[in-house]
Amino acid sequence: MAAAIALAERGKGLTGNNPSVGCIIVKDDIVIGRGWTQPGGRPHAEAMALEQAGPAVKGSTIYVSLEPCAHESVRGPSCADGLVAAKPARVVAALTDPDPRTAGSGFDRLVAAGISVERDAMAVEAHASLAGFISRITKGRPHVTLKLATSLDGCIAMADGRSRWITNDAARAHAHVERARCDAILVGAGTVRADTPKLNVRLPGLEGRSPRRIMLGSGDAPEGWEAIRTPDAISALDCNSLIVEGGAQTASAFLRAGLVDRLMLYRAPIIIGGGKPCLGDIGLADLSEAHGRWQLSDTRMLGNNRFEVYEAIPCSQA
Amino acid sequence: MAAAIALAERGKGLTGNNPSVGCIIVKDDIVIGRGWTQPGGRPHAEAMALEQAGPAVKGSTIYVSLEPCAHESVRGPSCADGLVAAKPARVVAALTDPDPRTAGSGFDRLVAAGISVERDAMAVEAHASLAGFISRITKGRPHVTLKLATSLDGCIAMADGRSRWITNDAARAHAHVERARCDAILVGAGTVRADTPKLNVRLPGLEGRSPRRIMLGSGDAPEGWEAIRTPDAISALDCNSLIVEGGAQTASAFLRAGLVDRLMLYRAPIIIGGGKPCLGDIGLADLSEAHGRWQLSDTRMLGNNRFEVYEAIPCSQA
Ligand SMILES: NC(=O)c1ccc[n+]([C@@H]2O[C@H](COP(=O)([O-])OP(=O)(O)OC[C@H]3O[C@@H](n4cnc5c(N)ncnc54)[C@H](OP(=O)(O)O)[C@@H]3O)[C@@H](O)[C@H]2O)c1
Ligand SMILES: NC(=O)c1ccc[n+]([C@@H]2O[C@H](COP(=O)([O-])OP(=O)(O)OC[C@H]3O[C@@H](n4cnc5c(N)ncnc54)[C@H](OP(=O)(O)O)[C@@H]3O)[C@@H](O)[C@H]2O)c1
Repeated sequence: MAAAIALAERGKGLTGNNPSVGCIIVKDDIVIGRGWTQPGGRPHAEAMALEQAGPAVKGSTIYVSLEPCAHESVRGPSCADGLVAAKPARVVAALTDPDPRTAGSGFDRLVAAGISVERDAMAVEAHASLAGFISRITKGRPHVTLKLATSLDGCIAMADGRSRWITNDAARAHAHVERARCDAILVGAGTVRADTPKLNVRLPGLEGRSPRRIMLGSGDAPEGWEAIRTPDAISALDCNSLIVEGGAQTASAFLRAGLVDRLMLYRAPIIIGGGKPCLGDIGLADLSEAHGRWQLSDTRMLGNNRFEVYEAIPCSQA
Repeated sequence: MAAAIALAERGKGLTGNNPSVGCIIVKDDIVIGRGWTQPGGRPHAEAMALEQAGPAVKGSTIYVSLEPCAHESVRGPSCADGLVAAKPARVVAALTDPDPRTAGSGFDRLVAAGISVERDAMAVEAHASLAGFISRITKGRPHVTLKLATSLDGCIAMADGRSRWITNDAARAHAHVERARCDAILVGAGTVRADTPKLNVRLPGLEGRSPRRIMLGSGDAPEGWEAIRTPDAISALDCNSLIVEGGAQTASAFLRAGLVDRLMLYRAPIIIGGGKPCLGDIGLADLSEAHGRWQLSDTRMLGNNRFEVYEAIPCSQA
């Protein structure tokens, strides 16, 4: 299942509003088929893997990071029907599809056909892998990552706005890889006015994976960009994952609106002192409210910069 | 030698302006004597270890974290003379004493007596252990550690000053241990006025190890405190190690004056947003100047708080 989830990473940022799924077919301890969701969202991972495996799929075990879809589309038959026809012995899936058009009926169809079904294998990892799709289906908005790149004292620029450079090359390259994996990037109109940033992916081999560019503000967006007027309007973007890259006003607006699912922090070992703070008011009434909201999920050094990821703790658990 | 340096830690914060040294005597693979600098600075580590070993010291190997002193004092004979009289076969030392009264003459005396001498064993670790003493002797001022306890966004309080609590119990206990290991703690007059902090060590068993309390400012210090008028005046404190605990103005003043040797950062996984920044202006002319100044030397998690230590990189190496 870990291998299937790893395959799913290959489709990230390319599958439109389809989930990026991974699929591995194993028979007699040999991998006979591998697939992941293709650019634009079709063919699905299962269809790719079935085609690779061919007739040998009969009697095999199929690992897939999301329940096979049960709904036909104009673009192809449902994966559940494809699997039933292929007659594997067993299907192991990580998650039940939150999409109401499937929502367990994919599993039902397999079971009805006499295929043994195992659910919830590595559900936590698959949940992380499919966080964007799950957010869009269950909350009606993309999964939002807020990126902050600061000095040790939490500044994103000197007092006069100079901000080149705070983080190192490795951190900036890492941030570009994260861009390639998401569907859209957003910055505030202030940042557009100040920097006219390209927001593209500038890494050899990944230039074609630049996500949609979104501006938050009241004015017109630059050519090739889209504009939204309020943070809430991200719902209308109809995409799975969004990275908010600043500036401070915009970052604070998303935090204030409770729209941040994940923090991605890059921190350089420098002190600025009296610089521009990375955030403005986020509407905190008391310090006690600030605790129990963020949980470290990943950290590593990128050269001498520290990278940290924090996940929002759902209010019900806080 | 590592064991000798570890013993030296026991004297930290208790030896006045004497270095806290550790000494281990080994014969036939058995430790026959251990010593560390005693409260007030005397007896020295070597004298303690020699007394414990007794006549067995003849022919032994003695490990000591600093060159044995060569100068007699009213409070006792020199360690070099004590060692010569005890006739060990070999003395292994980590550092040459920067004190001009010894500065190599301790080693000379041992060599002249036919004792084999090895220098610079684990010099880097011993240098860190004796940083305070070395700073006082070579720079004429204590080694200065700046402590900052912040949120992820670099704030030390909410905008209205509320700061209870940002860091967790483990971080605060850790900070108290660090207090116990230093000679003096300093805060600004603003913090004295706002918080009348105790600055003592509130840990079971360490209550007796509270350091001297220093206020930076123009007014009178509270009873039992000392006052200095400018950051430079720390030279007159005649102690080895000082922790600067805030507030932001005071921290910035020490950074601006180039008087910070080490940063000790405690960082809680909370976001305040628009709070009080941990630092004000430190006189940075350009971002490029901010780089290459600080090197991470230690980091660990204290519960969900991250602890980091950065050492100042000497300008000559930056
Ligand atoms: N070092 C870094 O990592 C980094 C990253 C990004 C930016 N920056 C710097 O940050 C600076 C800009 O930051 P900033 O905070 O001034 O500006 P900003 O957040 O980029 O943009 C502010 C604008 O965003 C819009 N906006 C903000 N909150 C809104 C809300 N709740 N609803 C609707 N619109 C909202 C408003 O646009 P309208 O005016 O159109 O209404 C507002 O003027 C630049 O100097 C840039 O270089 C640094
Ligand atoms: N969360 C934390 O970790 C933490 C830690 C400490 C403090 N704090 C908070 O920080 C706030 C106080 O901070 P603050 O920045 O306002 O004040 P501060 O740094 O504690 O004290 C400012 C005062 O220090 C003196 N001073 C500063 N720089 C000087 C210089 N270069 N030369 C001579 N004297 C100098 C001046 O005293 P005179 O006015 O006498 O001239 C000045 O008014 C308090 O609210 C406190 O609770 C938080």
